[in-house]
This record gives sequence, structure tokens and C-alpha cells, in this order.
Amino acid sequence: MKILILNGPNLNTLGKREPGVYGTQTLDDLERLLVKKYPADNFEFLQSNDEGVLISRLNALLEAPADGVVFNPGAFTHYSYALRDAISMLDIPVVEVHLSNIHARESFRKTSVIAAVCAGQISGFGMHSYILGVEALKLHTNSKR
Amino acid sequence: MKILILNGPNLNTLGKREPGVYGTQTLDDLERLLVKKYPADNFEFLQSNDEGVLISRLNALLEAPADGVVFNPGAFTHYSYALRDAISMLDIPVVEVHLSNIHARESFRKTSVIAAVCAGQISGFGMHSYILGVEALKLHTNSKR
Amino acid sequence: MKILILNGPNLNTLGKREPGVYGTQTLDDLERLLVKKYPADNFEFLQSNDEGVLISRLNALLEAPADGVVFNPGAFTHYSYALRDAISMLDIPVVEVHLSNIHARESFRKTSVIAAVCAGQISGFGMHSYILGVEALKLHTNSKR
Amino acid sequence: MKILILNGPNLNTLGKREPGVYGTQTLDDLERLLVKKYPADNFEFLQSNDEGVLISRLNALLEAPADGVVFNPGAFTHYSYALRDAISMLDIPVVEVHLSNIHARESFRKTSVIAAVCAGQISGFGMHSYILGVEALKLHTNSKR
Amino acid sequence: MKILILNGPNLNTLGKREPGVYGTQTLDDLERLLVKKYPADNFEFLQSNDEGVLISRLNALLEAPADGVVFNPGAFTHYSYALRDAISMLDIPVVEVHLSNIHARESFRKTSVIAAVCAGQISGFGMHSYILGVEALKLHTNSKR
Amino acid sequence: MKILILNGPNLNTLGKREPGVYGTQTLDDLERLLVKKYPADNFEFLQSNDEGVLISRLNALLEAPADGVVFNPGAFTHYSYALRDAISMLDIPVVEVHLSNIHARESFRKTSVIAAVCAGQISGFGMHSYILGVEALKLHTNSKR
Amino acid sequence: MKILILNGPNLNTLGKREPGVYGTQTLDDLERLLVKKYPADNFEFLQSNDEGVLISRLNALLEAPADGVVFNPGAFTHYSYALRDAISMLDIPVVEVHLSNIHARESFRKTSVIAAVCAGQISGFGMHSYILGVEALKLHTNSKR
Amino acid sequence: MKILILNGPNLNTLGKREPGVYGTQTLDDLERLLVKKYPADNFEFLQSNDEGVLISRLNALLEAPADGVVFNPGAFTHYSYALRDAISMLDIPVVEVHLSNIHARESFRKTSVIAAVCAGQISGFGMHSYILGVEALKLHTNSKR
Amino acid sequence: MKILILNGPNLNTLGKREPGVYGTQTLDDLERLLVKKYPADNFEFLQSNDEGVLISRLNALLEAPADGVVFNPGAFTHYSYALRDAISMLDIPVVEVHLSNIHARESFRKTSVIAAVCAGQISGFGMHSYILGVEALKLHTNSKR
Amino acid sequence: MKILILNGPNLNTLGKREPGVYGTQTLDDLERLLVKKYPADNFEFLQSNDEGVLISRLNALLEAPADGVVFNPGAFTHYSYALRDAISMLDIPVVEVHLSNIHARESFRKTSVIAAVCAGQISGFGMHSYILGVEALKLHTNSKR
Amino acid sequence: MKILILNGPNLNTLGKREPGVYGTQTLDDLERLLVKKYPADNFEFLQSNDEGVLISRLNALLEAPADGVVFNPGAFTHYSYALRDAISMLDIPVVEVHLSNIHARESFRKTSVIAAVCAGQISGFGMHSYILGVEALKLHTNSKR
Amino acid sequence: MKILILNGPNLNTLGKREPGVYGTQTLDDLERLLVKKYPADNFEFLQSNDEGVLISRLNALLEAPADGVVFNPGAFTHYSYALRDAISMLDIPVVEVHLSNIHARESFRKTSVIAAVCAGQISGFGMHSYILGVEALKLHTNSKR
Repeated sequence: MKILILNGPNLNTLGKREPGVYGTQTLDDLERLLVKKYPADNFEFLQSNDEGVLISRLNALLEAPADGVVFNPGAFTHYSYALRDAISMLDIPVVEVHLSNIHARESFRKTSVIAAVCAGQISGFGMHSYILGVEALKLHTNSKR
Repeated sequence: MKILILNGPNLNTLGKREPGVYGTQTLDDLERLLVKKYPADNFEFLQSNDEGVLISRLNALLEAPADGVVFNPGAFTHYSYALRDAISMLDIPVVEVHLSNIHARESFRKTSVIAAVCAGQISGFGMHSYILGVEALKLHTNSKR
Repeated sequence: MKILILNGPNLNTLGKREPGVYGTQTLDDLERLLVKKYPADNFEFLQSNDEGVLISRLNALLEAPADGVVFNPGAFTHYSYALRDAISMLDIPVVEVHLSNIHARESFRKTSVIAAVCAGQISGFGMHSYILGVEALKLHTNSKR
Repeated sequence: MKILILNGPNLNTLGKREPGVYGTQTLDDLERLLVKKYPADNFEFLQSNDEGVLISRLNALLEAPADGVVFNPGAFTHYSYALRDAISMLDIPVVEVHLSNIHARESFRKTSVIAAVCAGQISGFGMHSYILGVEALKLHTNSKR
Repeated sequence: MKILILNGPNLNTLGKREPGVYGTQTLDDLERLLVKKYPADNFEFLQSNDEGVLISRLNALLEAPADGVVFNPGAFTHYSYALRDAISMLDIPVVEVHLSNIHARESFRKTSVIAAVCAGQISGFGMHSYILGVEALKLHTNSKR
Repeated sequence: MKILILNGPNLNTLGKREPGVYGTQTLDDLERLLVKKYPADNFEFLQSNDEGVLISRLNALLEAPADGVVFNPGAFTHYSYALRDAISMLDIPVVEVHLSNIHARESFRKTSVIAAVCAGQISGFGMHSYILGVEALKLHTNSKR
Repeated sequence: MKILILNGPNLNTLGKREPGVYGTQTLDDLERLLVKKYPADNFEFLQSNDEGVLISRLNALLEAPADGVVFNPGAFTHYSYALRDAISMLDIPVVEVHLSNIHARESFRKTSVIAAVCAGQISGFGMHSYILGVEALKLHTNSKR
Repeated sequence: MKILILNGPNLNTLGKREPGVYGTQTLDDLERLLVKKYPADNFEFLQSNDEGVLISRLNALLEAPADGVVFNPGAFTHYSYALRDAISMLDIPVVEVHLSNIHARESFRKTSVIAAVCAGQISGFGMHSYILGVEALKLHTNSKR
Repeated sequence: MKILILNGPNLNTLGKREPGVYGTQTLDDLERLLVKKYPADNFEFLQSNDEGVLISRLNALLEAPADGVVFNPGAFTHYSYALRDAISMLDIPVVEVHLSNIHARESFRKTSVIAAVCAGQISGFGMHSYILGVEALKLHTNSKR
Repeated sequence: MKILILNGPNLNTLGKREPGVYGTQTLDDLERLLVKKYPADNFEFLQSNDEGVLISRLNALLEAPADGVVFNPGAFTHYSYALRDAISMLDIPVVEVHLSNIHARESFRKTSVIAAVCAGQISGFGMHSYILGVEALKLHTNSKR
Repeated sequence: MKILILNGPNLNTLGKREPGVYGTQTLDDLERLLVKKYPADNFEFLQSNDEGVLISRLNALLEAPADGVVFNPGAFTHYSYALRDAISMLDIPVVEVHLSNIHARESFRKTSVIAAVCAGQISGFGMHSYILGVEALKLHTNSKR
Repeated sequence: MKILILNGPNLNTLGKREPGVYGTQTLDDLERLLVKKYPADNFEFLQSNDEGVLISRLNALLEAPADGVVFNPGAFTHYSYALRDAISMLDIPVVEVHLSNIHARESFRKTSVIAAVCAGQISGFGMHSYILGVEALKLHTNSKR
């Protein structure tokens, strides 16, 4: 499978900030972990603090599609209707993932303006949320065959 | 692992209702699927339309704990603060799962009064949501060892 | 016609409480009244204070359907999304009825989380609300033939 | 019985608009239906797109009362506090009726500013809502004798 | 002074309805009372249940102005932004009056969409509210000379 | 008549502040104006910036009542439930008055927590609001004789 | 094209009120302007302060349709669900227009209960809003041929 | 006195969960404590996780009344309008008690849908809340004699 | 024990106002009652209509503490964040009491801005609420020894 | 005229996504269409998914102004207060345009945080919305000469 | 410069309460600190728990003005519209200061009803907030010369 | 000290726009002013209209920290939860500053989604807000030594 692992703002600091909340593993560790666990799959990794870059990457899937996207929109989750539009026009499944349980934190984190146009949402399992996101894409794809 | 698969109201009708939304597989199919996929694990399955039965089953985990719970609270998700209390007093991880993407349906379905006291939430992957829930428990448990 | 007359919490106390508001007739009187007025029809009467029992009875209609349901959900009207789900999966008409005019009482009574998935709602006519509910089922059924 | 059948804005178009929602019968058909079904009763029919005309007709009931009113206020249901006042000063029962189930449509249709001062509300049974309204008046009147 | 006494919906029923709340005097009594108390002034009296008639009467003041208006908008107080617009374009003072204390009744009566464009508001003094309204116009006019 | 003219916070500065909004007359001018206009009446004037002083003065009316109170609560209008309680226990009429039209200013000024327990409310007529308040008391008292 | 130019309450006063906001041109000027600019088209002009008249004119389009409607509902924009219903049942395009930018004024003006059932909304261009409305109808019609 | 001590969901786990919040005493300890402290009184103790069981027990008081009820509804406090109805039809005093100070916890715990139909509410005193509840019943009963 | 019985605005009028709601006993009666019932305890009684006096008395407890406070804040309950701050800095328990059941009255009375920083809240038992407050302090203190 | 046609996020995908909603024409088609229709005018076209780029382009108009801007902010419409600030500091007219009728879609699309600082808003006419925007600028400019 | 340092309720307890939050310095320490740091300036210090005293002190500035006011309104920040009025009538700058960052605490602390009529607001710097307030007054005054 | 002066969207236009509101000084003037006033300190200045650039600059402080940040987030203040996250992970103090008093402008400007994670907030002092911000950092730093 060709899978895009997309990460939004501040996720570049993983492992460097608040390890009590987010653990000590970095985004590089995540990439190595996924590549090792799913050697047969074709991963692309992109992190950006820039909403426009994320939108453009998603737009590009219209012409060069992948099999699915695992997307952690970071704090853009709560207000980026532009990302929502970029996702809603795709034909491939996008799985929204979060490291922490967004339902157990500040109340503004409970609202995702993006989840309604994704295939589903997974939150609360740290780095494992990405693995579960990949599993979800695989289960989703197999069940359609 | 000892895992409790807990299902709330109306989930007994799976496969019999709205197959366009929920698929044609029944709860029995789910049970067979999980037992087959995880032969080494010890599953207990309980479905009830009765809030009190669900609360009591969760209460019992205080004295005879399992390693984790995968819980689809059905529509109780949106108002049962009593189930929330029953979960919040447990020391083992509870993963909230939903068949459909609750964020893409009627607005009352976007609010879970239970998610804040769970380890995490997975929604939108049909029967696969339960498998992802079990995977989440396993990843969660392994990472603690 | 086979008609299920379903009554929710506290309706067992009809005739015993607040006669100024609810009259002096009991649920037994209602049953006798309906059987006498519609001798050709086949009524089943069920009252329960237990949300789970009501859900299960509605679930059972998936396999042994009636021609229609007249349902007074009592105070469950205002919060039981689980009953809503149980109704929305049925193919037969459910008419929501209320003894008192719920729009003329405390403000929480104005919201029905159930009405949106019923065929219609009738409120304010005391015991007669049930008769009107049966009439509504009959008119509804005849107009479809 | 002397019964006023009062219809608010746009109900003159019945049968001419959105037959999928409102059916193909016109207001004339309704009038014929009621007269035929209740030959012993004395019906007056009034439809107006004009709030003032409806208020004035209701005001006139103070001096030349009928036995009851079956009123479909159309979209005035949702904002005409002036109609509410005109109803609340009457001593005869007014039954609010709606063709469609107003609780199952756009959210603004769920609020009736009028229902609180009516005897009751019936919604969702198409043309039959008027018949049920007449029945409700008859049951209501008989039970008072 | 030339003074327009304008009355909105249902005020034609004064003295005929709810005398416990609104007293037994009719609108004719009010007219006689004002003419007698202020013989030197030139009153015009208009009551209408029709929003359009009220708007048009106010519009006409642009070309044939009076010295002031005492206006009881009845229930239009709570939603007629069209009346608000009709008042806001006038150069003469309009005093909003109410028979009952609108702040002591149902909560929807507390909001006036009209008061913000009037010179002031007087509520709660029964028929006397109109006299106070005339007094207010006189004091207002004298203080400007 | 024995009339208490009660003024709340900041009204001591009348004539000294924002003359464009509140005019150039002081509270002393108001007192002289009322005494001159109503020589037969017995006025008591009290202004205080202190909520407790105003409450205590109103409490004292339980034992040494006046015929009525004209009360401008200033900004206490918007939050002093304690003043509301002090008024609601009185048997004599209290008229709430405001210099400016509170419905035409900042939105917080539109809510009076006090008006519901007063006989009525008069706002928008500058110093004349007090005269209208006294007139209202007189009309109110005469109509009761 | 046969085009209905429909104007709601207070628009008869155009040019006579608040010229700083609405300019000095009257509704007659608008009519002359449109007829001159679009000599080949067939215009009907109707202004009314009366909601019922506007509803009835729209209802009549069900039987004698025009090619389109340019409608300035004035303040009815903000509460007339009855006009909304009258528009939603039409098959021809209705363009909602406003002289002023309704999004830049009082907050109640930002909500249109009508726009959702129109083809589109144009606001803020004074008299030109009507020309743009006609252009919109022409572009809309041509693109469908 | 005959006193019913009624406990709602999860209170069976007292002493077994979160001892930092709820202490180490169990419901059995509470029962022993009350019986010992009030040896002359006749206590009935009932705990249930099932809303229907609690409603039915309260219903039964219509025919076999006690002198009063001390009721800790647990999390049902926040949504069970059905329990509210069951209490409001009783003629005997019901005192709502809570172990913790519900006003000092999550915001959803501040709303009791039940308190309005109880004699009073006592919260925040741990096990002592029940003793205070019994004292309240005794004081209440004595003051009526 | 040294106990401060603190009363807020309007409580000086107890027994003089609305005896149907608040009974005929005065604050003096309350003081006598408490002194008689608890002869071994050291009571201080303070009532003030003045928020500042109440705050200052609470502040003084920082330097000359009592064992506890029973506080009826009257209507300050609903808005005095300053009293809240004064309580939250104390180390001794403060019990909020109310004569009437504040949850069964006007909706603004349901919100206490103070309860969250008190040990607990007792409402609805008339004069007995103070006795229960003292009992609560005693139980609270004993359980800590 | 020198006119800037500014397009926000995702508009680069026009013609490639959801042709049922947005048609099959691309942004290039729009550019060709405008240049062809208005050969005498000087157009600049800019689309960006990047809020910062759009803000900077608008900022640059302070020093090298155009005669007007036609701006489709895409989903930034609903939250970019930064774009609002960038527009509000300009002296030239900005017309907000939308392809679809934003008032007829999801409720979040009804709120424009930008419209209040634009000359006006046009929505619902597909590609024609841009033509109407240019027409609006031309009419606006001519009327000022 | 003549500067009034005004402190509201509970600030007299500084240094005596919650030193973890508010530090160990008292209001006396603050006074000494300011006098020492700004020996050329003329400070007046006033703290009161009494809203009326604070209002009266501000009122007095109308006749004996200072060059500016540094005001910590304590909890009055959140509800005292009377203090707001007292500030808004002054011609000299008032700087609102807070010891703690009011935006990082309970949600009710985020709303200041006073800030809108002050020159500016400074919060979060402990005792230094007052120094910054004095600096702000000095910078403000110098920039006006 | 090493201090980062960070400016958000549109602040590059300072001195060029709305001088009545924001003065005539440019960002360059600000930089010169700070460098001159604090010659011993090490300033870095960064302005960007691009949220991503601001986030990345803040992220970089994790590895190459400064002693503090003075941050004017411009309109990002009101919605950029991504900037909030970028600040909350830093160990150095960030002071939020605003030129204008954000509490005295449009209501959307009163909400800062960022202030809760800053050391404090300073608003309303024009260019001086930055100086006060630097002073705040210095006082804050000294008090920690």
C-alpha cells in the first residue's frame, strides 16, 4: 500500500517537549517504527507547521493518489475548515489520529472540524495511534476487495 | 490477555438492521472473528440494553479485573454519566469504540460523556473498530511492560 | 391490526398520582377502553420503568413485527437516545403520545429526542392521546393500501 | 359541533407543491373530506397568508365562539407570538396540527411558540392530522360533559 | 400637539379578555380618556392586527409628521424587525408602551426588538402607560424648546 | 403621598459627567424640581453608591412604609439580585426608572434583574423619567382607591 | 426574460429616509433604471409592507411562473419563515438582494432565514444590488441552456 | 420513623474505589452507622445500578408510604427526568444527598434535574451527608407536628 | 467549638417578610435556638446587607480563626465572586446554607458562585438549615480528629 | 480598471473536485473568461492555499493599490480574522464572492468573519459569482465618479 | 505625577493567603516598593472590600483629579458594572492590573466588565503588575506632551 | 538578556494603516526604540504574516532558547490554537502584548486563545505595550534570581 503519514503543527517537536504527556520518541522514531513494522508498504512522511503546505499536499492526491492517509492535524484539528475542505474532496480514506485522548483535555480540544469528513478517528494511544491508523487503512482496504 | 468486549443498547440487532450503515455481520460473527484472530486471548462478551447491567459488570472489574475493556456504549455514549463513573473508578484501560464515525452523523452523536475517562476512542471502522480496540489494548499493555 | 401499546416510566402510577393533571383513570382502564373500542384489533400492552426492557421489546419487533406502535415514553422522551435508536431501525410506524401537552410545561419537557424518528407526535389529550394514536395508525395504514 | 378549520401561510398551495412531502390533495379536498366524514358538524374553513387576518378571525371567537379550532399555523408556528396571544385569550380548545412531522425536519421547525397555549399538538400524519384534530376536539368535548 | 396612538395585534380585544390581567376598559375607553384629559391635543387612534398596516402608517409620518407617537406593539414587540425599521427612519419621538410589566412575564416577553430605536419604554401601568407615554412626549417636546 | 426617591451608584455625579448623555442638571436640581412640582407630597431623597445602604433603606420600608418608591438603581440594575430581593418583599409599588434608554446602549444594559419585581419600568426620558415615575405612582394609587 | 422585482417592508420609503445610508434614489428610480437598462425584458415590480401580500405573490408563481425573482425582503429577511416556505416551493431561481451590506450592521441583520432556499445572495451594493441580481438571473439562465 | 435510604448507581462500590475522594467506609458501614445512631427508627436500605428499580421503589411509596426518603441518586442526578417524575408525585419528603460537594467538581455535576422536586439538597459531607439527611427529615417532621 | 453564623443581605427581615415562604421566626429566634441547642459552643452572629462587611469579617478569620462558619449569603450567592475569594483563602470549613430550596425557585437561584469553595451546601430546610450546618461542622470536625 | 482576483485555499482544485457541486471549469478557465469578457481591464490573478501569502498580497495594496479586489477566501471565510484585518485597512473596495450559496450548506459556512469589512458579498452563482463581483466593482466605481 | 493606587476586595490579605499563588509580600510592601522606586511621584493608596467606597473614591476624581489610576479591582472585575460606570466618566487614564494571569484560571475570571473603559489591562506579573501599571501611566502621559 | 520580539500578521503595516488607531510609527521605529532604550540587551526581531513561520520560530526556542519572548500575535490571538501549543511547550516566559486595548473593540477580540499559556498579557498602550513587555520580562527574571 502507498500510505501518506501527514503531521501538522508542533509535531516536529515530539520527544523534545512534555515527555510526560507525549513520550520521548521523536517523529523520526515513528518513521523508523512504521517502516520496520510494515516493510512491504510504501510510506511517505510529511510534517509541516504550515496549513498551506498541508492543504497543497492533500490537493496533490487528486492527481497522484495514495491508498490512504493517516493524518494528525495537531491543533489545526480545532479550526482549519480549509483542511476539512481539502480532505472532503478526496476519494481515498483519511484516518484522523491523535497522540493524546483529545476528549480528556481542555474543552476546545473536544471539537474536531475535520473528523466529519474522515473515514474515522483514533485518539489517545500515543505513537500507537499511528499504527492503529495504518491498521485501520489496511482493514478498510481489505474489506472492500 | 483477558479482555472484556462490552456492547450497549441495540447492538444485539447488528446485522439485522440498516445493513447499509452497519453491515450484515452479527454480534456472533464479531465474537467468532475475535476468537479466531486472537486464539491466545481470553475474551468475555457481554451485550445489554440495560444500563444497570453494564454498570454492574464494570463494577465487578474492581474485584475480578481483566487486562482491558473494549466498550461500545451505543447511544448511552451521549448521556450515561453513570457509565462514566463506573469506568472512571477502574485501574485497567477501557477503549471506547464505535462502528460508525460518530463525528459525521447527527450533532448529538458528537458528544461522548464517556470518552474523557477512557484510555482512548476509536470510531468509524465498522466491525474493525473492535479489532483496532483490541490492538490498542495490546499495544498499550506491551508498552508498559 | 396488531398494535403494541408501550408505556414508559411512572405510567404504572396513572390514576394514583396527581389526578388534577393526569385524571383518575388507570392504565388498566386504558387497556379496557382500547379493547372495547377496537374489538377487532389485537393489542399488546407493556409498561416498564426500565429503559432496557422497552428497548428489548422494540428490538423484538424486528423479528415479530406488529402493524404499529403507540408509545408514551414518559420522561425517557427527553434523554433516551437509546430508545431513539431502537425506534429508528423499525419499518413499522411508531406514534409518540403524551397525556399532557408537553409544550405547556417545564422547558425540559419541550424537547423530544425521540419524535424525529417517529411517524408523528400527539400530545395534550389525556387518555384520548392513545385513542388518537391508534386512529393515526389506522389512517396511516389505510392510506398506504 | 361548530368547528373552525384554520390554515396559515402557504397552505393554499397544498397539492400544488412538493407532492413528495405534502401529497397531492388540495385544501378543497380536505374540506370535502371533513364535511363528508362529519356530516352532522358545522365547519368553517379559513386559509390566509396574512397573520393579521388569522388574528382577527381568532379575536372574533371572543364574541361568536365555536366549539373548537383546528389550526395549522404553517410557518407562523415558529415566530408569531401575536397568534399565540390571540389563542391564549380564548376559552375554547385550539388544537395545533401539522401535515409533516415538524420534529423530523430543519431545527427551526422544532420550536412552536404557539403550542404552549393550545390544548394539544398533533403532527406528522398528513391530511389525517386534521381528522385527528377534529377527533381530539370531539373526545375533549365529550369528556367534559 | 398632534399625537398618534398606535396599537398592535390583539389590543382590539382589551376589556374583553383576561380582565384580571388587563382590566375591563376597552380601547374606546382609552380613547375617550385621553381626549378628555388632553382636550387641547390632536389625537389619532389606530389599532391593527396587521403588521403591514402599522408599518405603512409609520411610513406615512415621513411625509405628514405628527409631534410624536405612543406605540403599543403588542406581541410584535418581540420579533417585528420591520416595525423597528419603520420607527428608526422617523425624526419624531416614538414611545413604546405596554399595559403589563413585560419584564415580569414569560421570558420571551423580556426582549423588545423595537425599544432600541424608540425614545424610551414604559411598561407595567395598565391604561396609565398610555397617559405616561403622552406625558413623556410632552416633557420631551417642552425640554427641546 | 409619601414618596421615596432612591438613586443608586454614580448618580451623585449627575450634571458633572458626560453632559451630552445625561444633561447638566444635578441630583439637587432634580430634588428641587420634584418638590416644586408636587408641593403637596412628602419626598425623601436618598442616593448611595453602596448596595448595602440601598438594601437597608428598602428593608426599613417594611416597618415605616411610604406610598411608593421611584428607584433608579444605576448599574446595580444589571446584577444586584440582593436589591431584587429587597424590593420583592415590599407591599408598596416600586417604579424602576432610568435616565437613558437602557435598551439602546451596550447589550449588558438591556437586562434588568430588578424589573420583574417592580410595578413597572420607565426608561429613556432623562430627568423626566423621575417625574413620570411619580406620575405612575399617583395614577397607580388613585386607580386603587 | 420575465422577471419579478419584489420588495419588502419599508422599501417604499427609499430616497426619503436616511439618504446617507440608502442614497437619494427612490423605488421609482430603480424601476426606470432597470427598464431602461434591460429594454428587452419584461419586468413586474411589487413592493409591499405586508408579509401576506408577498407570500401570495410568490404562491401565484406556481401557476403563472416568471423566469426569475429578484427579492429584497427587507427586515422580513430575519424572521419570516413563511416567506422562506413560499420561496422553497418554487422551481424558478430567486435571488435575495440587499442595499446595504447586512453583514456589516447590527448582529441580528447577519442572519437570513431566507437565503438557504434562494439561488444566492447579493448584499452591499445599494441600487446596484438589483442590477447584479438581474445579471445573476441572466447568467444563471444562460448557463442552463 | 420509617425512613428509606436509597442509593443509585456505583454507590455499591463505596470504600472500594477512590478512597481519597470517597473514604474507606462501605455502604454496609453506612447502614450499621445509621441503625446504631438511630435505634428507634425503622430503616430500609436499597441500592441499585438500575434506574428502573429505583423508579419502581419510589412508585411503591404511593401505596406503602414511609415518613421520608434520603436519596443519593449518584450520576442519575444529572439526567434522570424519570426519577424526577417518580419523586414529584410523592407526598412525603425526599432529601437529595451527595457524598462529595457536587458544586466543586466537573461542571456537568452542578446540574441536578432532581433537586427541584425534593425537599432540599445536602452535598459535600461524605458519609455524614446521610446523617444530615436523616436529621433534616426529623427536623422537618417535628416542625410539622 | 467556636462557630461564626454569617448572614447576608435581607436576612435581617426574616419573620417580617413573606412568612408563607420563610416562616415567622426572626434572626433573633435563630440565635436563641442555636445557643439553647448547643450551650457548650461559642457562637458569633453577624448579619449584614453590605458585601464589604461580610468580606472583611471573613478576612479577619485569617488571623483570629474560628472552627467553622455557617454562611447564608442570601442573594450574594449568585454573583459575589468577591465573597468566593474571601472564602477560598480560609483553612476552616465554611458551610453554605439556604432557607429555601434554591433549586426549586427562579432559574438564577440555581447558580451559586460560592458553593465550589465551601465544604458543602445545605438548602431547603428553613431555619433547620442552620442547625444542619452546625451539625455538619461538628461531624466534619470530629471525623478529622 | 486594475482588478485583483484573489482565491483562497482549495480553489486551485476547481474543475477537478466534486463537479456536481462546483462544475467542471478550472481556475484557468475563469481567468480566460474574465480576460475575454473585460478586454480593457487589467487583471491580476492569485490563488494560494497559504493564509500568509494572501495577507501579504493584500498588504501590498497599501503601497501599489488596484481599483478593487474580488476575493473568494474559501474556507478562510469562516475563521481568518487575520485576513479580515488585512482587508479592513484598505481604501479600495473588496467584494467577497463564493461559488456555492454558503447560506444553504453546513451551518459553519453561514458565518463570514470577513464580510463585515468588505463592500459586499455575493454567493451562490458558481463561476458567475466572479463576473458579478467584477460588475459590482465597476458599478461601485462609476457611481463614485 | 499624582497617582492613585486602588485595590479592591481581599487584596488587604496579600502576603497572608495562598503565598504559592500570590507571594509573601503585603500591600504595605507594595506601597513601600512604589514610593522607593518613584520618589518624585505623589502616591495615594486605597484598598477597600466595599464596592461603594471604591466608586466614591473614583467619583471624587471628577473634582480633584490625579494624573492616573492603577486599579486592581479584585473579583469586582467580573461583575461590577457600577465600577465600570465610575471609570468611564473619568478623563484620566485608568490601568487595570492583576497579580495573576486571569486568562489562565477559572473561566469566570476571563471576563472583565471593566477593561473596556480602561486605558489598558496588565495581568500576570504579581507585584510587578503594579510597577508596569505605573510605567504605563508614565509612558502614556509623556507621549501626550 | 536575549529577547525575541515576535510580531504576527499585518503588523508589518504599522504606521501605514489607520494612524488614528495605531499611530504613525513603523515596526522599524519600534526596533530602533527598543535597541536604543535597552542597549545592553540582545534583541531579535521577527514579523510574519505566516502562522507556520511563527510556530517554527517558537519551536526553535526549544533548542536555542532566549530569556523571554514579547509576542504580539495580531489576529492569530483569536483562533490559532497551534500557536498556543507552540508557546505552552516552552520553559521561558512569553508575554502577550497588544497595541490597542483588545477588550474595548469588537467582541471577537476579547477572546485570546493564547493568553492562558503566556506569563501574562499587556494590552492598550500602543508601542509602549512592547516596552512594558520587555520590562515585564526583566522584572520577572530578576525576581527569580
